[in-house]
Amino acid sequence: MFKVLYKDSNTRARIGEMRLYHGKVSTPVFMPVGTNGTVKTFLPRELEEMNTEIILSNAYHLYLRPGLEVLEKLGGLHKFAGWNSNILTDSGGFQLFSLSKLAKTKHDGIEFQSHIDGSRHFLNPIDIVNVQKIIGSDVMMVLDHLVEAKSDLKKVEKALETTIRWARQSREYYLKNVDSEKQKMFGIIQGGFFKELRKRSIEETVAIGFDGYAIGGLSVGETKAQFLDILEYTAEFMPEDKPRYLMGVGTPEDLFYGIENGIDMFDCVFPTRVARNALALTSAGRVNLNNEKFKFDESPLDKECDCYICKNFSKAYVRHLFKAKEITAPRMTSYHNVYFMRNIVEKIKKCIVNGDYQSYRKDFFAKYFQTKTEAAF
Amino acid sequence: MFKVLYKDSNTRARIGEMRLYHGKVSTPVFMPVGTNGTVKTFLPRELEEMNTEIILSNAYHLYLRPGLEVLEKLGGLHKFAGWNSNILTDSGGFQLFSLSKLAKTKHDGIEFQSHIDGSRHFLNPIDIVNVQKIIGSDVMMVLDHLVEAKSDLKKVEKALETTIRWARQSREYYLKNVDSEKQKMFGIIQGGFFKELRKRSIEETVAIGFDGYAIGGLSVGETKAQFLDILEYTAEFMPEDKPRYLMGVGTPEDLFYGIENGIDMFDCVFPTRVARNALALTSAGRVNLNNEKFKFDESPLDKECDCYICKNFSKAYVRHLFKAKEITAPRMTSYHNVYFMRNIVEKIKKCIVNGDYQSYRKDFFAKYFQTKTEAAF
Repeated sequence: MFKVLYKDSNTRARIGEMRLYHGKVSTPVFMPVGTNGTVKTFLPRELEEMNTEIILSNAYHLYLRPGLEVLEKLGGLHKFAGWNSNILTDSGGFQLFSLSKLAKTKHDGIEFQSHIDGSRHFLNPIDIVNVQKIIGSDVMMVLDHLVEAKSDLKKVEKALETTIRWARQSREYYLKNVDSEKQKMFGIIQGGFFKELRKRSIEETVAIGFDGYAIGGLSVGETKAQFLDILEYTAEFMPEDKPRYLMGVGTPEDLFYGIENGIDMFDCVFPTRVARNALALTSAGRVNLNNEKFKFDESPLDKECDCYICKNFSKAYVRHLFKAKEITAPRMTSYHNVYFMRNIVEKIKKCIVNGDYQSYRKDFFAKYFQTKTEAAF
Repeated sequence: MFKVLYKDSNTRARIGEMRLYHGKVSTPVFMPVGTNGTVKTFLPRELEEMNTEIILSNAYHLYLRPGLEVLEKLGGLHKFAGWNSNILTDSGGFQLFSLSKLAKTKHDGIEFQSHIDGSRHFLNPIDIVNVQKIIGSDVMMVLDHLVEAKSDLKKVEKALETTIRWARQSREYYLKNVDSEKQKMFGIIQGGFFKELRKRSIEETVAIGFDGYAIGGLSVGETKAQFLDILEYTAEFMPEDKPRYLMGVGTPEDLFYGIENGIDMFDCVFPTRVARNALALTSAGRVNLNNEKFKFDESPLDKECDCYICKNFSKAYVRHLFKAKEITAPRMTSYHNVYFMRNIVEKIKKCIVNGDYQSYRKDFFAKYFQTKTEAAF
């Protein structure tokens, strides 16, 4: 299902290919996020024209709305959403962690209240597999238990044991009840910011045996130094022959950090969320279009970008549309930002093959951080 | 600039062609409305793929935001908005009428407060020509003075005299200061619901001499019977050899009423505004996607439509996206509704040529009104 095609000689970066039910996925890959079964502001054909081979959606959100009955009767998420390429679904572990006031983790599952209508629900790891079976996810994720970055060793260890127990239950159920040709399943490495727990998590999760492994529990409020330390440590121990997925990450710079540590897959709401706040990601850094200084700016969002938006519209126009609260405005920045993320990954891939990765990385960082970064929110 | 190519033998309907600076416009034509220099939710290429030859924008809105300085420095609205086909701009007469609490009509122009920031402005008819010159409108409209449907004869007559005086000033200024190859100018027929005033308006406006004539002052709170009566009466007296434009109209059924009375051009926010309220216009009538009954509905918005949305998505999915407050939802209904309006006009044109107009009209109305019409708002 996964082949490493090329390895960088100076870093742990690699180029690979996953074969999933809805086609191949060239890695490294950044997966745009479609929480509710649509990548916010996009129609599928716009993702297709960027050669998007996989998007991410959320089992938790889809379970609550439109609900399993709709997804089942309408033939699964691919058909429902008119999306013909791959879909990876997160299990809901992270969503229930971030909506912690509404959720309580029990020994055998998660009890929670809907953030939409307050209705009460309980889902165990097997339920989550079944939800993703109905969705028709090309890659399903096991239910995991996340804890805050500041949690002590005892708390993290207990959460890890829950994650491993659930992973085992999920995989056992999967092997008996899911068509493994159509749907793959990834395990999730937890263990917070304790290296010994990260190592144990890898050993025990790999012992269960999954089609790929994800690093979970990052981007939960830690410092960048902690993030990089755990990323580097964890990625190194993950199996070479399986895809490695860094969950919920991240920014343009994170793509470099991840890829040079051997990460193959990323997802994050970052490019689309900041886009709706008038922030364009560009080769010259983040650009906040609400800024008065762009009022007469004839230049595109990013001079180095060849996307439809950059080829046709000026900063002044996009800024005008934000000021006028036009839906077209977040459409434009979202389109550009997702294209920008994809382009970085594609450029990195080329540079790995050409042996230019280090020099591209240096150039990118020098230009991207040339000015004080503008706030994302 | 305008040629009638075909005339229906049973009605006053006609097929024609306008030659404007940004290309030909086949008539009858429904112009999608882009108040702020963007048709709400659309990118230009989506209008292009529907073969949209002309859109409408608003001099009043553009004057306030982004403002003339931006439009001038950025090279006019076509370049600013990345729109390569024609643009007709309304003069602001209707906007200042509908924002009447903020505006006061004086003898020589309109004094008003910005609905955006409360700033005070005064614009006379010549200023409005200059605004549209800077915008680069392919068709500019003269400043007119509208009054409410219930106004008495004296009030309407006084307003009409203002409209005619302003029209004369506008045209005189236009002839000396505007490149008539690049920009055309239409006069506006007013006169409220008094036929003698409508007739006088036509006579005096035509005597000034414009490139086309619009019926203004309809859709201001009158009954449908009043609307149809004045439409029929006014259209009949308008010159045969110039385009006739029915301003701010309308609904799908209004396209039939207008065309069979010899109208060549329409514009209305209706299809896009109702779209944002989850209302799809379909051959089987209006469909409110918030309705629970569509929860499991696998059928497209309109079974008879071949637009990108209808070919790829179900009512159930569009409904889900509205429920989840996804921007993609109003995008889908807006796209479909504008396509739907265009398709009606195209179908009518074909039927006129084939002599089938009356039978198509009958079929359309029977199907479109088969169920109780759902509320638009």
